[in-house]
Amino acid sequence: MNTFGVAYRTAVFGSSHGALVGCSVEGIPPGTRLNLAEVQHELDRRRPAQSLLVSQRKEADRLEILDGLLEGMATGTPVVAAVRNEDADPSHYREYFRTPRPGHGDYVARVKYRGANDPRGGGQLSGRMTAPLVISGAFARQVLAPHGIGFLAHTVALGGVRARPVPLDSVRATAEANPVRCGDPKATAEMVAAVEAARRERDSVGGIIEGVVTGLPVGAGEPFFLSSESALAALLFSIPAVKGVEFGAGFAAAGMRGSDHNDAYRLEGGRVVTRTNHAGGILGGLTTGMPLVVRVAVKPTASIPREQDTVDLDAMTPAKVTVKGRHDPCIVPRAVPVVENALAMGMLDLLLLGGHLGGDRRG
Amino acid sequence: MNTFGVAYRTAVFGSSHGALVGCSVEGIPPGTRLNLAEVQHELDRRRPAQSLLVSQRKEADRLEILDGLLEGMATGTPVVAAVRNEDADPSHYREYFRTPRPGHGDYVARVKYRGANDPRGGGQLSGRMTAPLVISGAFARQVLAPHGIGFLAHTVALGGVRARPVPLDSVRATAEANPVRCGDPKATAEMVAAVEAARRERDSVGGIIEGVVTGLPVGAGEPFFLSSESALAALLFSIPAVKGVEFGAGFAAAGMRGSDHNDAYRLEGGRVVTRTNHAGGILGGLTTGMPLVVRVAVKPTASIPREQDTVDLDAMTPAKVTVKGRHDPCIVPRAVPVVENALAMGMLDLLLLGGHLGGDRRG
Amino acid sequence: MNTFGVAYRTAVFGSSHGALVGCSVEGIPPGTRLNLAEVQHELDRRRPAQSLLVSQRKEADRLEILDGLLEGMATGTPVVAAVRNEDADPSHYREYFRTPRPGHGDYVARVKYRGANDPRGGGQLSGRMTAPLVISGAFARQVLAPHGIGFLAHTVALGGVRARPVPLDSVRATAEANPVRCGDPKATAEMVAAVEAARRERDSVGGIIEGVVTGLPVGAGEPFFLSSESALAALLFSIPAVKGVEFGAGFAAAGMRGSDHNDAYRLEGGRVVTRTNHAGGILGGLTTGMPLVVRVAVKPTASIPREQDTVDLDAMTPAKVTVKGRHDPCIVPRAVPVVENALAMGMLDLLLLGGHLGGDRRG
Amino acid sequence: MNTFGVAYRTAVFGSSHGALVGCSVEGIPPGTRLNLAEVQHELDRRRPAQSLLVSQRKEADRLEILDGLLEGMATGTPVVAAVRNEDADPSHYREYFRTPRPGHGDYVARVKYRGANDPRGGGQLSGRMTAPLVISGAFARQVLAPHGIGFLAHTVALGGVRARPVPLDSVRATAEANPVRCGDPKATAEMVAAVEAARRERDSVGGIIEGVVTGLPVGAGEPFFLSSESALAALLFSIPAVKGVEFGAGFAAAGMRGSDHNDAYRLEGGRVVTRTNHAGGILGGLTTGMPLVVRVAVKPTASIPREQDTVDLDAMTPAKVTVKGRHDPCIVPRAVPVVENALAMGMLDLLLLGGHLGGDRRG
Repeated sequence: MNTFGVAYRTAVFGSSHGALVGCSVEGIPPGTRLNLAEVQHELDRRRPAQSLLVSQRKEADRLEILDGLLEGMATGTPVVAAVRNEDADPSHYREYFRTPRPGHGDYVARVKYRGANDPRGGGQLSGRMTAPLVISGAFARQVLAPHGIGFLAHTVALGGVRARPVPLDSVRATAEANPVRCGDPKATAEMVAAVEAARRERDSVGGIIEGVVTGLPVGAGEPFFLSSESALAALLFSIPAVKGVEFGAGFAAAGMRGSDHNDAYRLEGGRVVTRTNHAGGILGGLTTGMPLVVRVAVKPTASIPREQDTVDLDAMTPAKVTVKGRHDPCIVPRAVPVVENALAMGMLDLLLLGGHLGGDRRG
Repeated sequence: MNTFGVAYRTAVFGSSHGALVGCSVEGIPPGTRLNLAEVQHELDRRRPAQSLLVSQRKEADRLEILDGLLEGMATGTPVVAAVRNEDADPSHYREYFRTPRPGHGDYVARVKYRGANDPRGGGQLSGRMTAPLVISGAFARQVLAPHGIGFLAHTVALGGVRARPVPLDSVRATAEANPVRCGDPKATAEMVAAVEAARRERDSVGGIIEGVVTGLPVGAGEPFFLSSESALAALLFSIPAVKGVEFGAGFAAAGMRGSDHNDAYRLEGGRVVTRTNHAGGILGGLTTGMPLVVRVAVKPTASIPREQDTVDLDAMTPAKVTVKGRHDPCIVPRAVPVVENALAMGMLDLLLLGGHLGGDRRG
Repeated sequence: MNTFGVAYRTAVFGSSHGALVGCSVEGIPPGTRLNLAEVQHELDRRRPAQSLLVSQRKEADRLEILDGLLEGMATGTPVVAAVRNEDADPSHYREYFRTPRPGHGDYVARVKYRGANDPRGGGQLSGRMTAPLVISGAFARQVLAPHGIGFLAHTVALGGVRARPVPLDSVRATAEANPVRCGDPKATAEMVAAVEAARRERDSVGGIIEGVVTGLPVGAGEPFFLSSESALAALLFSIPAVKGVEFGAGFAAAGMRGSDHNDAYRLEGGRVVTRTNHAGGILGGLTTGMPLVVRVAVKPTASIPREQDTVDLDAMTPAKVTVKGRHDPCIVPRAVPVVENALAMGMLDLLLLGGHLGGDRRG
Repeated sequence: MNTFGVAYRTAVFGSSHGALVGCSVEGIPPGTRLNLAEVQHELDRRRPAQSLLVSQRKEADRLEILDGLLEGMATGTPVVAAVRNEDADPSHYREYFRTPRPGHGDYVARVKYRGANDPRGGGQLSGRMTAPLVISGAFARQVLAPHGIGFLAHTVALGGVRARPVPLDSVRATAEANPVRCGDPKATAEMVAAVEAARRERDSVGGIIEGVVTGLPVGAGEPFFLSSESALAALLFSIPAVKGVEFGAGFAAAGMRGSDHNDAYRLEGGRVVTRTNHAGGILGGLTTGMPLVVRVAVKPTASIPREQDTVDLDAMTPAKVTVKGRHDPCIVPRAVPVVENALAMGMLDLLLLGGHLGGDRRG
């Protein structure tokens, strides 16, 4: 199931060790001017080898537009874009086909695909498939920016360290400048230390990313099965390593009283807003016009350079496996732009579908 | 978007204050004998007015089969089933159209549907729409039971009280017998007290439901966008009041090290299993064969019999609203069978889609 | 696969001998005032027993609205509508399960559904499933009428008699007033005679229906797989007994030269039109703004009161079967409103999807 | 809408004058050995410049596999394949943007895409988009061949010349060896003459292609909206220049009596077959097990090297346009393999969806 969306449709193709990964994107209004440097910038944010905290696999991840643009403008025909796979190093993967790595998809893929699967790099289960999400989302945010709709993601927990709440403007000003993409300077230092400690101990850490969408209209989302939460959660759970998604107060809401959790309405400059935003900008599955707030739990990187217990699937005997090659002790910072752009991709679909962008859209 | 599923497709219809709510279900193998008493039992578990803890709205919720069964067996034609809406009391809803209730969909629905929406009971945003989910899921579990696949949901947190971990067999033996559907006897008593305290204080509480699926094959889920997590989360977030979904260790995984989180493989009776199950039975979006474990955060009931701040949408002035009528101080116990059956509905789709049920399926 | 459409979605439910047939329809803009008398009128046009030419099965086909309307206006929630099955006479169908009727679905349904299928009346393969198409289409044309988009179908061949071309206005004025729904008075008399001859000879006839859509904008249709022709043909081929669909010159185009077939452009009152309309209003899969013209071939009714050769599927021996009960010697006149309303249903989907109806649509 | 299929899903990408055209194909059972030479052979059959009868645009149409195969076997990950666009000659297309060619999509695309469309070669409306259909279909027939399911298409009418009925074996033996792909030697000579006459007269001709599928099981097709006829017609109408589709007796059925048209059942070697096959192998939308027979009307090539009347869309004045460049006086022979392989693509989807290929399919 490699296509997402009803009105803004993204078909992803490729896998981690084939020739390329890419996407074909339908629904960009014809005539939309697309700034490819900005798309490249989003890809660069996701790219490995940006700092010593992340994987040293070298991929230029240079955006190639294969179709759908003419003189910088969307033609109405699907925009087809790809990045090539350059630095694939499949040397260790045969081993994992036989002795699957704990926490990875090696074993499940071997069974599902009856042993015919490409064992190199997890095939389609690879985090490399998030590059097309970033591309599609980067297009989407360019469609949405003129409507005043903006996207921001940042790290709120890493390696057991929690960031304190920080105003969005501060986050915007500081998160990109530090290697963990956190908006809280004090937590940032501790997070960096936690990642470095994990690396030294041949281990890895997980974290939590918060995404915020501002400027949304009221009413996006399509009952019953395509609530805003359903659509965005489905998309976010496609990102490898995501194990939890919550909106607004989320799991904390389970411990609250209704009188605390309900967001009272009030008027602000002639607009209906809520005093608090425990709903995370979504009520009844529809956007409320308040900031949409979602948090995503990312598990610790499964690849750790330690000997772990596994099974030899050919001999059906106990075995050991040690993961080799280049891996991130923490993928959370790289997942931040993925979450941010995936949110744009998902929201554009809901907004087009609900007719919220107004006017005559064709194509 | 009232249809869910690719191979097991459920189209829901109706809303809280129309004539009925129901579903048309495609994909039940022809010849499957369906036990309608069991389906009715699942509906009864969801029904209001079962205990003093929940809403006193009286609905018989009597299952009617409108098509698709002949002499108790699925014909291959969609099974169409419904329950009538009997005790609809729309008297207070006009008020909420003008002064929307905090925490409810009144305001967003009014804007989305440009004031033409049926204000009674939230229309399609109502919890009443979960009755068709229960019906479809109850059919699905009957299809899956002969394959050894079972479903169980129970309350693990309520009103700020957390249940201690309890073996599944104990949960199975005890959860249904108590009004909060919790498997931990000590927590149960505290949860009941918490709900009663909330009711006394004209307030409401939320909670967390855990769902477990046992007996699954390896490999269900369809990369890239229909991972098991994506499919189930999309379905679970369709249930009104759900604000968070996590699999396995979930948000706690974000604070773990890889060396703790990775589930080591080992052999058990010739089968590959994992020593721990932090993955919650899903790796790379595919089922591992271990129990699938998901937790769902349910916000406190929005309807509380207190005066709350709101806005008069006609006059555009500040206003007060007090919710009247019959409401649950806590919907979590009623949501337990919804989660349980929704999981069956979602898993049957993935299992049929992946060809995991074997043999020649037609229809 | 009981749901059709992307932006205007119709889920049909029920079958010929269950409790009812109906549909749940999403995408009617909230606030649309729906004239139910007009919908009933379209159902009445399709109803059996209107003249001696068609089946004498008595069905009131009384429209029931189960949800989605409030004070005559669409609420934005799906409109759920149904007609009950009243005069089902299943007495002969058991026989056809064993000795399938030539030209019917008895045999294929028995194999597909492994003998579990409801043999009464063809189940979901029945022509009765066209009632929901008429309902959904009748809603759609009410949405489209204010945009100046109109639908007309009429019989152009019946029982071997071909109608001469008649101006659309004449067709509109006369076709409904005669029992074969043909706009050519001379052909009408011959068609009636042909049907009566067939009935006397215990036989049946087929025919061709032409549908015309006027007032369309330029550009409806979504390349590559949802061309206007693909979408409408898929819908029209869902109507039982349809064996051919052609647009514009259709099969005759295969014998033309390009210089004859190409429709030259010219200006008319500031609008770009074509001199001829061999394209039937569709080029490159997109509407041209000229009338969309489609023709549908309807096979002769399979049910004829004669002994026919068949096979005893239990004994696996040659056998004879004679169809009993009430059947149309010609279903073409009843299929005319089905084609007409199905076109409305299909076009509304393409027009909403392409954003051609303008403005802010929500719901 | 660039994705087709539910269980065998083909996402096409690219357009006539971008970098490439290709497809990403899901649903090929993992472990299937794919013979790429056979796929290339099908592409070669579709390729321009094979004889003087067709376009002289030079495209190597060399198949490139970008993902999804390992050592010649499908891995379970989507198979991604493409052919590059090499000989694009966009020099004349700017002219057609202003003065659209009759019979082409120039005008409708300009309006639909608000003037932003890529005017070169019709963009996505181009016949070049049929190359991915051929690729996907060529994969599909390799999946189906071991099940004894075969596909054959041939020309039955061209330039006003009708082929006489010829046994399928003769067609198979002779059609590929002649430039019009017709199985009737006498008609072939006349067809060639008709094409040459048209070329001399700066004109073009259309024709009719018949497709036959043999070896099908009983019961493929999914009521109500995914009948075999609906699914295949939708796919065939995606092929540019197709204006009519009929199954079995098709439009001729409209002139038959039921007693002639009904196909009597009989036993043959223990199998249930029909004496005639007016149904074209489909009853009630489901396959009967008899050969599936479909005919496709192809309009004459719109591009003719003559001056034609058009409109200057910038000046909004009458104008003339003369089509330049390399064009086929008849595309029918090149469309034969497109129809043949598209049928395989469509049937594989229906067969997987209905579980007709048996066994445990995963992926």
